[in-house]
Amino acid sequence: MTTYDLLVLGSGPGGYDAAVEAAASGLKTGLVEAKEIGGTCLNRGCIPTKLWLGGTSAIEELAAQTKVRVATGEIRVDFAALQARKDRHIAATRKAMTARLAALGVDLHVGRGRVAGAHELEVTTAEGKTTLTFRKLMVATGSRPASFPGVAPDGARVLDSTGFLALPKMPASLLVVGGGFIGLEMAQAAHRLGAKITIVDALPRIAGPEDPEVAKTLETAFRRLGWDFRLGIKVASVTTRDESAVLTLDAASGGEELMAECALVAVGRRPNSADLGLESLGVTLTGPGYIATDENLLAAPDVYAVGDVNGRMLLAHAASHQAHHVVQLLLDKARGPYESGPIPSILYGSPEVLRVGLMAEDAKAMGENVLVSRAQLIVNPIAQAHAATQGFVKCVWRQGHVAGITAVGADVSRMAVSASLIIRAGWTREDAAGFMFPHPTLDESLKAALLADKEAA
Amino acid sequence: MTTYDLLVLGSGPGGYDAAVEAAASGLKTGLVEAKEIGGTCLNRGCIPTKLWLGGTSAIEELAAQTKVRVATGEIRVDFAALQARKDRHIAATRKAMTARLAALGVDLHVGRGRVAGAHELEVTTAEGKTTLTFRKLMVATGSRPASFPGVAPDGARVLDSTGFLALPKMPASLLVVGGGFIGLEMAQAAHRLGAKITIVDALPRIAGPEDPEVAKTLETAFRRLGWDFRLGIKVASVTTRDESAVLTLDAASGGEELMAECALVAVGRRPNSADLGLESLGVTLTGPGYIATDENLLAAPDVYAVGDVNGRMLLAHAASHQAHHVVQLLLDKARGPYESGPIPSILYGSPEVLRVGLMAEDAKAMGENVLVSRAQLIVNPIAQAHAATQGFVKCVWRQGHVAGITAVGADVSRMAVSASLIIRAGWTREDAAGFMFPHPTLDESLKAALLADKEAA
Repeated sequence: MTTYDLLVLGSGPGGYDAAVEAAASGLKTGLVEAKEIGGTCLNRGCIPTKLWLGGTSAIEELAAQTKVRVATGEIRVDFAALQARKDRHIAATRKAMTARLAALGVDLHVGRGRVAGAHELEVTTAEGKTTLTFRKLMVATGSRPASFPGVAPDGARVLDSTGFLALPKMPASLLVVGGGFIGLEMAQAAHRLGAKITIVDALPRIAGPEDPEVAKTLETAFRRLGWDFRLGIKVASVTTRDESAVLTLDAASGGEELMAECALVAVGRRPNSADLGLESLGVTLTGPGYIATDENLLAAPDVYAVGDVNGRMLLAHAASHQAHHVVQLLLDKARGPYESGPIPSILYGSPEVLRVGLMAEDAKAMGENVLVSRAQLIVNPIAQAHAATQGFVKCVWRQGHVAGITAVGADVSRMAVSASLIIRAGWTREDAAGFMFPHPTLDESLKAALLADKEAA
Repeated sequence: MTTYDLLVLGSGPGGYDAAVEAAASGLKTGLVEAKEIGGTCLNRGCIPTKLWLGGTSAIEELAAQTKVRVATGEIRVDFAALQARKDRHIAATRKAMTARLAALGVDLHVGRGRVAGAHELEVTTAEGKTTLTFRKLMVATGSRPASFPGVAPDGARVLDSTGFLALPKMPASLLVVGGGFIGLEMAQAAHRLGAKITIVDALPRIAGPEDPEVAKTLETAFRRLGWDFRLGIKVASVTTRDESAVLTLDAASGGEELMAECALVAVGRRPNSADLGLESLGVTLTGPGYIATDENLLAAPDVYAVGDVNGRMLLAHAASHQAHHVVQLLLDKARGPYESGPIPSILYGSPEVLRVGLMAEDAKAMGENVLVSRAQLIVNPIAQAHAATQGFVKCVWRQGHVAGITAVGADVSRMAVSASLIIRAGWTREDAAGFMFPHPTLDESLKAALLADKEAA
């Protein structure tokens, strides 16, 4: 029987990339997937959301030009066609991924995996149980939508992100419980597709992890679209009644009922670490079930955990990056302990939010003295050309070097890679002054922010 | 009388940026401008073109989604409103620039400058002649549209880029003489605004300086829009007859006549170096009149030349970058001779073209052995989301390090800054594998190209 050099549990961005790289590097590699190849990101997360946003982006472009009276017109998106295109894209991507694994000699086992011994994993497939043996195990089982009592999706009109992305028809009105990036991206697509949006959050502001100024600008932009916000309130329950979703506020929040055609519950995510038999290997779970890992992403002897399930950073690219480190370790090529470098985070739509590195609020919370500098998009000619001038770029400086960059506005995600590179290089103001940014580009707003006067955060 | 530490001749990107930086650094600075502040870029070049392209970009977004049957609709752009918005933006920018100069204490002299002695410049203003004295002179007089005998704009229906951008009404059909980036950007805007496009060029292909594969992909994309191409032919004349522009091919090219409502002559640019009295200072002109400069951009003792007029690279950001070097020199802060670093070049529209650093053809012409690697946009989920999947990213490798990057496709300019940073850092394949690109982004096509198998160029 084959003993895998590397057996990977979960085929999302972390697990799939690890399997591909390991196999391409000559390791005998197995990959176990309980559902569809590609994980949450491809099947139920980033990719379908981006297909919705991409398929509807002309609507926002036109709206901006209409506001400045340059253009008029109507755009009708056929939601059924958009869903079909989304499903075709996902299916084609799964097929291409499966073919690539096969070409590289990766064994793909479709079934639920469970640790059966020190170097054994039992897989329950459609045909029955089989036991695989491994030298190293990588747990990359990801996460799933969270809920809380009273707010569990009921599959009727109360939906989590998975159910929402599968809707055959966009509702005319939508209650979004949770003003984080998942709720806000999906709400933007729903808005463009005609839904009346209400955002509900227990926090007094949306986009919790973002810089407060960024979050405020984002909220203002969404208010201009006509969205309602019910912030700083507690939800007692969200249920289906007759043909509606009904959200009932907690008595302390007034007890009021809000109604819409559907409700989307997007209150965070939980790690998929239960029922994997990991305890027997000595793996420790923390918080809501995150797998604790050391500086090399090791969770127990010969067991690594990457991606959402280790709770370090719930982002697809963070998972892929961690996976690369583990494979490099197995190949004896790692240059030291795992270092993520700056991790770019993007909230997509129009406006978008970009965040990389240290934020001013976080620095202050840690008692660090930082300076900030900023530039408004309104003076940028490309922002003007697209009549999308709301927003700014903000830099966080630590001892004369850029340590963080955040931005809000149309298309600011285009600065993500350069912002990461600049933070990693620890640019000074002089470095920015000496670097040639192409003109005219929105990216020049980043240069302008880097060159602007610094002030206390 | 004031003697300027730095007197700048020309207020385009090079001259304006130099004046601002010099004044902000404490140098007594004067700026002489014969026409409008901002030069070609703001008034007659990049900025108005981008306002046209930005104001019409929803049309291309919608067309892409219509092609994949996700959306239908109509967008009507009011060209007069777009022109008015363009003119307002330019006027507002000029006003802001003028205010900034005033705030920094830069003396702005509106008039034509001419060297009158070793450290003297005579300016002819509306009020008469005045003589300014300087310690250092920066010539940043830019360039103007070129023409050749028989193809000179006649101000009626045969227009250069300046005349074309000032049109009150977009013609129904347009002959574009010159398939370079100016002609192609303006033709894209004209196409979206309803003009039937014919591109005419003496070369057998469009987009001369671009990688041949890139140019071919671009031509294919434009052919799909229904454009006509007449390449590898010689033009005898372009004239106005009755209500049309008439282009007559050279007898060797068949002598045929092509007609359209207007013709745009975009056959390159010529430096503005004549009638400035530069010869008396010992300045040397080369080629069509470019000011020769040394490794510090010095054209003669105490005389620097930056931007288009020195012929190094006719791009706004190259001018600004050179200007920064000269000001640093004057402040004794330059770290060595002028080094441009990688210069990003962008052809805007949809598709766009990005080019930074060494191209494979240029390397081959110099007898250098390089390898190339590439990735197609069609496998990128963001390209799929925007239904704009034609195009690719191509990397040029020299001795294991990235030396050049080019790309063609929708929105590829978003990789410009990161491509420059990556080339400047001389990344290896391993550097790319270890860097976290955000997912999902079009930028991952750059990562895919960096990681793809290398082959002979």
